[in-house]
Amino acid sequence: MPTILGQNQYGKAENRVVKITREGDTHHIKDLNVSVALSGELDEVHYSGSNANVLPTDTTKNTVFAFAKEHGIESAEQFGILLAQHFVDSCEPITKARIRVEEYDWERIETSEANSKFIGADDVRHSFVRKGAETRTAQITYDGEGFQVFSGLKGLTVMNSTNSEFWGYIKDRYTTLREDYDRILATEVTSVWRHSWDGGDKRRPNWEKSYQQTKKHMLHAFAETYSLSLQQTLYQMGSRVINSRAEIDEIRFSMPNKHHFRVDLEPFGIKNETADGAVYYAADRPYGLIEATVLRDGAEALIPVDMTNL
Amino acid sequence: MPTILGQNQYGKAENRVVKITREGDTHHIKDLNVSVALSGELDEVHYSGSNANVLPTDTTKNTVFAFAKEHGIESAEQFGILLAQHFVDSCEPITKARIRVEEYDWERIETSEANSKFIGADDVRHSFVRKGAETRTAQITYDGEGFQVFSGLKGLTVMNSTNSEFWGYIKDRYTTLREDYDRILATEVTSVWRHSWDGGDKRRPNWEKSYQQTKKHMLHAFAETYSLSLQQTLYQMGSRVINSRAEIDEIRFSMPNKHHFRVDLEPFGIKNETADGAVYYAADRPYGLIEATVLRDGAEALIPVDMTNL
Amino acid sequence: MPTILGQNQYGKAENRVVKITREGDTHHIKDLNVSVALSGELDEVHYSGSNANVLPTDTTKNTVFAFAKEHGIESAEQFGILLAQHFVDSCEPITKARIRVEEYDWERIETSEANSKFIGADDVRHSFVRKGAETRTAQITYDGEGFQVFSGLKGLTVMNSTNSEFWGYIKDRYTTLREDYDRILATEVTSVWRHSWDGGDKRRPNWEKSYQQTKKHMLHAFAETYSLSLQQTLYQMGSRVINSRAEIDEIRFSMPNKHHFRVDLEPFGIKNETADGAVYYAADRPYGLIEATVLRDGAEALIPVDMTNL
Amino acid sequence: MPTILGQNQYGKAENRVVKITREGDTHHIKDLNVSVALSGELDEVHYSGSNANVLPTDTTKNTVFAFAKEHGIESAEQFGILLAQHFVDSCEPITKARIRVEEYDWERIETSEANSKFIGADDVRHSFVRKGAETRTAQITYDGEGFQVFSGLKGLTVMNSTNSEFWGYIKDRYTTLREDYDRILATEVTSVWRHSWDGGDKRRPNWEKSYQQTKKHMLHAFAETYSLSLQQTLYQMGSRVINSRAEIDEIRFSMPNKHHFRVDLEPFGIKNETADGAVYYAADRPYGLIEATVLRDGAEALIPVDMTNL
Repeated sequence: MPTILGQNQYGKAENRVVKITREGDTHHIKDLNVSVALSGELDEVHYSGSNANVLPTDTTKNTVFAFAKEHGIESAEQFGILLAQHFVDSCEPITKARIRVEEYDWERIETSEANSKFIGADDVRHSFVRKGAETRTAQITYDGEGFQVFSGLKGLTVMNSTNSEFWGYIKDRYTTLREDYDRILATEVTSVWRHSWDGGDKRRPNWEKSYQQTKKHMLHAFAETYSLSLQQTLYQMGSRVINSRAEIDEIRFSMPNKHHFRVDLEPFGIKNETADGAVYYAADRPYGLIEATVLRDGAEALIPVDMTNL
Repeated sequence: MPTILGQNQYGKAENRVVKITREGDTHHIKDLNVSVALSGELDEVHYSGSNANVLPTDTTKNTVFAFAKEHGIESAEQFGILLAQHFVDSCEPITKARIRVEEYDWERIETSEANSKFIGADDVRHSFVRKGAETRTAQITYDGEGFQVFSGLKGLTVMNSTNSEFWGYIKDRYTTLREDYDRILATEVTSVWRHSWDGGDKRRPNWEKSYQQTKKHMLHAFAETYSLSLQQTLYQMGSRVINSRAEIDEIRFSMPNKHHFRVDLEPFGIKNETADGAVYYAADRPYGLIEATVLRDGAEALIPVDMTNL
Repeated sequence: MPTILGQNQYGKAENRVVKITREGDTHHIKDLNVSVALSGELDEVHYSGSNANVLPTDTTKNTVFAFAKEHGIESAEQFGILLAQHFVDSCEPITKARIRVEEYDWERIETSEANSKFIGADDVRHSFVRKGAETRTAQITYDGEGFQVFSGLKGLTVMNSTNSEFWGYIKDRYTTLREDYDRILATEVTSVWRHSWDGGDKRRPNWEKSYQQTKKHMLHAFAETYSLSLQQTLYQMGSRVINSRAEIDEIRFSMPNKHHFRVDLEPFGIKNETADGAVYYAADRPYGLIEATVLRDGAEALIPVDMTNL
Repeated sequence: MPTILGQNQYGKAENRVVKITREGDTHHIKDLNVSVALSGELDEVHYSGSNANVLPTDTTKNTVFAFAKEHGIESAEQFGILLAQHFVDSCEPITKARIRVEEYDWERIETSEANSKFIGADDVRHSFVRKGAETRTAQITYDGEGFQVFSGLKGLTVMNSTNSEFWGYIKDRYTTLREDYDRILATEVTSVWRHSWDGGDKRRPNWEKSYQQTKKHMLHAFAETYSLSLQQTLYQMGSRVINSRAEIDEIRFSMPNKHHFRVDLEPFGIKNETADGAVYYAADRPYGLIEATVLRDGAEALIPVDMTNL
């Protein structure tokens, strides 16, 4: 046969699992989208169609739901660790498991005391409204020896309405852009960061706190950077995270420049200066796209280049 | 010619206008998506292609951006009122204008004092993160005599993790569903409500406050209703809004039942009881879809049936 | 109670039913997305939560799948007629049923004889590739007495790369657009048309042929109209359909003007004339949106204005 | 500074360029979405915000449009080669360029002679309808020395309504799936393949013909494989392409198993056997996801694992 099989993996993608935990009348939600990908001794299923080494994707789905009940969902990362370990350790031909998770966040609907006299619901601790902002992500890989844990987020849209400039760039035959000393800087952040914890002796991070703090540092660095380029802002964000969070060794960003063009109102005899509060056109396409990795000095770069564009 | 022209309208849709207002170093954002639809003496452009009565859609776009600067954007509704009035009053052949608006909400990035020593940004009041939850909507219609103003929202996803039952329904040959005395009730609310203000002597609502209060009442009624059917919950939500907000005469909802099915874990010897905190599968399609209008007694039903499905 | 219930309906939306029919080794597919909406004596389920008059949406789902097997799917329209009639005629409190259908089209994968020696599949008549162009739609309503049948399509994207002009329009203070004597005209057609058949003595249309012919006339009229406005093209399309298809009394279109702007290459010393074959920028938003109904003279306008924007 | 910059790139994404070519009254379309990503000596723009080495993304956009006019668009691949070479060869600090392209296909609207008497359009050769099926893709990378060219497609949805089985798999505690000897096999193919041509002496492929033939082989192998697993079908598709096209050394697939579940109609006393033509429920999520690379024996694996999931 003049062709051979290369890298391959399979599993059930996008298992939408919701776990409710009850503490008396107070409920808690974990709302995840879990994707399983398994690799191993799988040549024959490709070459001859023999499924002798195949744990069906349907079984991987069942396992996700059963584990949610048996072990609960402490965090996306911890749940992924349990699942990855299970598939490799319990199924002989499977030598590697990769679990990807998206997590959707909910917050409580706060009801006033005044309202509690309505209808008869005296103490409402089981009502939630979904926060629509960023989606939290995680990827856990296990190969029977060690773990690799990525955390991340996507869909975090941020804007500085000033303190951004763009000038001093290369001009060639095709350049028409004018330099700008007061522009809007807006982007929709996708980011993936790598924890140094690998399943060994190092202290396991507090995944929930680590996520909240990383996001906070990212937002603060975005807000506080007087920006001469989106690349500079990106680097500040990554640098801030690495410097502030000892458990993180590497972070990658994909940041589209969500262009807000100041509208030319001169034809109508109207000035549209930034200092007076300007009107902008929010463009869809095309958009600048800035991507980069920031590393702790000495750390290895392990986050794939396209990981943040999935 | 045996065919004739019926209802028709035209205009520029989805003008993405962003207005920044500056109060010293503190900035404010209005971020809208504005669609214009004009009607009037437009037979000839259809029959012969004569554009003599046509204000180009490009001009309607320019007007949206120019008005944002000339008049500011006080609220989606107020901006729509100005635009609708302008097109009808200033352009002879145009006898009716309908402005639809989507509004995207942003909140400030709060930075701690501790952080303000970084980078040199001492007081950050121009940095925002987009709230991703519901999109606010509005539709303003003007025909030269009066206004009709709808406000609304879409994409507001809510869940009660208990206090919902479903039983006592019709059983026929095709019924397999089992009655349920403790289920999750989740929906993604789309709603449109009609203000009684029509441009006449009645006091013009405070559009911003009216929206916030309407949404709050909707959420509270959802949370506080012990539900025997999604229809009942819907009616309570509508009724609460009408009873609480004197300026609103009619409200319509489209509420998909976002099914969360309790997973059968019996085959694995695992109990999955709601009382212990159950695991659910969040389904995509199909979904129940519940739609209804609630009216102030004596009010006319004017919100089109499909308005909430656009 | 100072609030009352207005128009309301409920049912299971987006039942994704696929029916395979086998004629020996030759298979045929019908691939539909069916949504059910029922109305009737449903006040109590809203007021008190009593489900005594409610046929569960889960049962309406089961019915869709069972009917696909019991009756087959001759066409989207015929299937909708059977379902609508069933719900109203078999369930006392239900007085009106509305069935909406989307249909996805597949075509056979043609395999050459030369290939048939591979693998052992000697005669491949059960392999299909999904056509991704327009989606066919239908809406069938039944109230116990008569039927109303709409057919339609969405997502049919067409372009004339010349034979389109736009000039002679109104100019006001906000007009900057230049007249154009050779532009691209492109649109994504959404259309709904109403059959005069209402369940009475009139001959029932051949739904499959009617659809194919209507689409063909629409495309031909688009291609053959030298256009002075998109409205003119729309009217020609509607008029051609009404004049060519006796079974259709009314047709409505929603046609976004998918702008293709000729790029200004002057700054680079490059001419970009249409006559030489120009380069265009295909814009996303905003876009002109042209909507209109065309009627057979004397026919009643019954297609809702927003029906084509769902 | 304890952090350092890792892999980085920037450019303008999603330039929607449409090129019309005229041969007398016969027009031709090329409709592309072009994304530019540049790398090189770009540390300073990240560290200090200096743009001295930055060719603005706006300039890369202008270049795409200007090149479409100056050089035409022979094929997605050839256009990408020209652009990649330009950026690296003309801009000192840029050492690597990666061009990604999506191509949308249009076909002519065929009008009958009978129709040509309408309206006055005697010979319609400039009217098109967009084919909605798969999107063609390409990625061209140039580093100043050699090229790497990937071609591909996404959104090609195919179905075999029989000749697919699934049995003989591993059973563990969480397995509930029943073996199936006659199931539907449906998938939405995403594929990327690598040409061996690298800019050196090897004959440059005919990109258009290569694409059409590769797609054809893929479809034929899908149709002609009696399938015992989706992995087997995938491998047959890849193997067929490599064996049939000498210019291609490597191909990768991402193939979701678009599950069509046979509906259980037993509760209604209805048999739903495949042999009689069954009814299926087309599920959305979760879905099996099968991914693999197939290589010419001896070839190097260079297509990134996640490339087919972008």
